[in-house]
Amino acid sequence: MMRAYDVLLKKRNGGKLTEAEIKFMVEGFVKGDIPDYQMAAFLMAIFFVHLDDEERFYLTKAMLESGDKVDLSMIDGIKIDKHSTGGVGDKTTLVFAPVIASFGLPIAKMSGRALGHTGGTVDKLESIPGFRTTLDMNEFIANVKKYGIAIVGQTANLAPADKKIYSLRDVTATVDEISLISSSIMSKKLAISSDLLLLDVKFGSGAFMKDYEDAKILAQSMVDIGKNFGRRVVAVLTSMEQPLGRKIGNSLEVIEAIETLKGKGPEDFTELCVHLSAYALSFAGFGDIEKCKELVREKIYSGEALKKFGDLIKAQKGDSRVLEAPEKILPVSGDTVELKSKISGYVEKIDAEKIGLATMILGAGRKTKEDKIDHGVGIELLKKIGDEVKDGEPFVRIYFSEKSDLDSAVKFVEEAYGFSTSKTSAPALIGELIY
Amino acid sequence: MMRAYDVLLKKRNGGKLTEAEIKFMVEGFVKGDIPDYQMAAFLMAIFFVHLDDEERFYLTKAMLESGDKVDLSMIDGIKIDKHSTGGVGDKTTLVFAPVIASFGLPIAKMSGRALGHTGGTVDKLESIPGFRTTLDMNEFIANVKKYGIAIVGQTANLAPADKKIYSLRDVTATVDEISLISSSIMSKKLAISSDLLLLDVKFGSGAFMKDYEDAKILAQSMVDIGKNFGRRVVAVLTSMEQPLGRKIGNSLEVIEAIETLKGKGPEDFTELCVHLSAYALSFAGFGDIEKCKELVREKIYSGEALKKFGDLIKAQKGDSRVLEAPEKILPVSGDTVELKSKISGYVEKIDAEKIGLATMILGAGRKTKEDKIDHGVGIELLKKIGDEVKDGEPFVRIYFSEKSDLDSAVKFVEEAYGFSTSKTSAPALIGELIY
Repeated sequence: MMRAYDVLLKKRNGGKLTEAEIKFMVEGFVKGDIPDYQMAAFLMAIFFVHLDDEERFYLTKAMLESGDKVDLSMIDGIKIDKHSTGGVGDKTTLVFAPVIASFGLPIAKMSGRALGHTGGTVDKLESIPGFRTTLDMNEFIANVKKYGIAIVGQTANLAPADKKIYSLRDVTATVDEISLISSSIMSKKLAISSDLLLLDVKFGSGAFMKDYEDAKILAQSMVDIGKNFGRRVVAVLTSMEQPLGRKIGNSLEVIEAIETLKGKGPEDFTELCVHLSAYALSFAGFGDIEKCKELVREKIYSGEALKKFGDLIKAQKGDSRVLEAPEKILPVSGDTVELKSKISGYVEKIDAEKIGLATMILGAGRKTKEDKIDHGVGIELLKKIGDEVKDGEPFVRIYFSEKSDLDSAVKFVEEAYGFSTSKTSAPALIGELIY
Repeated sequence: MMRAYDVLLKKRNGGKLTEAEIKFMVEGFVKGDIPDYQMAAFLMAIFFVHLDDEERFYLTKAMLESGDKVDLSMIDGIKIDKHSTGGVGDKTTLVFAPVIASFGLPIAKMSGRALGHTGGTVDKLESIPGFRTTLDMNEFIANVKKYGIAIVGQTANLAPADKKIYSLRDVTATVDEISLISSSIMSKKLAISSDLLLLDVKFGSGAFMKDYEDAKILAQSMVDIGKNFGRRVVAVLTSMEQPLGRKIGNSLEVIEAIETLKGKGPEDFTELCVHLSAYALSFAGFGDIEKCKELVREKIYSGEALKKFGDLIKAQKGDSRVLEAPEKILPVSGDTVELKSKISGYVEKIDAEKIGLATMILGAGRKTKEDKIDHGVGIELLKKIGDEVKDGEPFVRIYFSEKSDLDSAVKFVEEAYGFSTSKTSAPALIGELIY
């Protein structure tokens, strides 16, 4: 008979676990047969000795099989899913999804409500009055078929084993290990039967992986897990050295997404959306990357991508006047303060993590599952890295609700910013493509 | 405010913990404020990154201070305590204690009832009809003052934190790590105010540390912890490559101890007792080791050491006729089988661990705290490494109670033994002295 102790000891001693052993640990833990403390020790052992390619595959498989699978086979066409490892100001899905859908490729997107500095994609969409993010599976599929796009909160019970294991990792300092991170992400993403999964793997100060090389290893690990499942997965490394775009918060990010779909978005965020969409299209057979970038830009300039976003809003009962007058329709806090530069010079750094923390303090995100999100608060970066700033000129605008939150939010923003009297330049945004 | 998560993370990242942090973890865990899973992850992190000298001192201190201290200061003279890291056939205390006491040095010995192949020292003593191993603290001290010797079960609440942590280590594969082992042992031993603590650290197939160098590291670690407490601690490395002596079991070991006190014990066990006693005496100022070995032999040949053992038995209400006719007074099973050699040659190896397992199966030890010990069963090694054996000649005698246990005990004994047709020799018994 298999015993958790023996599997744990084997792993601790650097042994390679079999599929049966990994399945035993995951299933036993979910059922409650294997106690928390043995799983905690097991996870810490993995933190130190890691899992190899095959073990990662088995772990992903065991977690995936603990829950539902979402079958999209009744939808015709190439189904493209995108996942970001997360960062500050990342509202890419709000642009990527309508852009891709505007090419006639179906978007059937399920998005989680993660904890973080701001809400997830569905929380941002819920800034739009009336927008429904809860559709049952039939409605979801019907919407994709009819409108070519649907974005909903994750209703299916995807990889509950991962959820339970993640909760334990979170309190036992075993989150930041490549095999565990990649298996965790992939167990949820591979439960949805997409034809292509595009991973946006962040690196830099605001990313989980600060270091480019670590991010690359993580990307490769996820791609390899996908390959072991016979699935098409590609990863793009992109910078989170400073926040993405200029607006961070829920309503604020919807506003910026709409601006971007109108061709008037911030340079870095637009570049990222164009790149990611082009990679997806290229893998879907629309030509090489350069050609696909052109195609994407055309869909934006022609207004077709924006129109598709309008279709999404209408289909999910949101107030579609938001496209014309986002600032009026969306709840944006009227209480603002601006932070002013004390020197003349250039922005040298913006620590994305600290900006994220400030946004969280303002109420834009969730620290615990129970927290309610304030859609109206956030931060607008008037100046980004490389921008010139004059003495006394505002570099940040803070949208707040509670005056009591303001002081510590301001403190973090001030700490995040670094200035220089000599010219600086923005960090490169797009790294390697891993597949 | 200190958080277990932060301390755990710091250790996992290879940081050095402060006294306050270690105390916080130990006390929090004992109080139940820190859950099992965080302690399990913490222990596994320590397994991989270890604790340095200072951290080991703080851990020992925190565990020691979680319980009672045994103050022996009202007893005059140099109080010597001895501790063995454990092995098969190790009945050294039964000889060491009366030998040392016969020099007028007070022996106030508290002994635990560990799990293992045989019982602990007090279980062995309980083979002697009437022998009481439970004395209250006043009686214990009075006996030492009056007879110069007392050996009791551990009644004081020594290092309960260690007990709780050990239980968790036992089920999370975090037992075999030097800092944890040495802190665990020392937290209990240093709680007793001896003037000299002599550690018998075993190496070889039947020891916790199979490897001599590992045993040496463990010995040094324990000695260093003692030094940090300002206590006198010395360690002797001794071999557990084969079982110690020829008799393993509870009554059987008392018989062998009595034989040894009569100067008729097996060579290896006698050598060990003489060495350990001589080291202790030498540290107590009786001269150099060689001179002390002579003194010890004299106490044995003169019968004074045996007489002191008799004093102990009388004082603790045991049947002192055991000294004259141990086989008659002690419960020894009348059911025996002998295993016979199938070749003519020499004994090349006796895996002590397997012999221990066989003894445990026969009922001589405890697998769980609730198990009852059978004092009459055990194994007698008629042939040890280096001994010549003829085809058909018995090499082991097994004393059993339950016929159902016999087959698997025999199997382990047969596996333990290795024979050679060429001459072999016994492994060296005494290694380095660490202080």
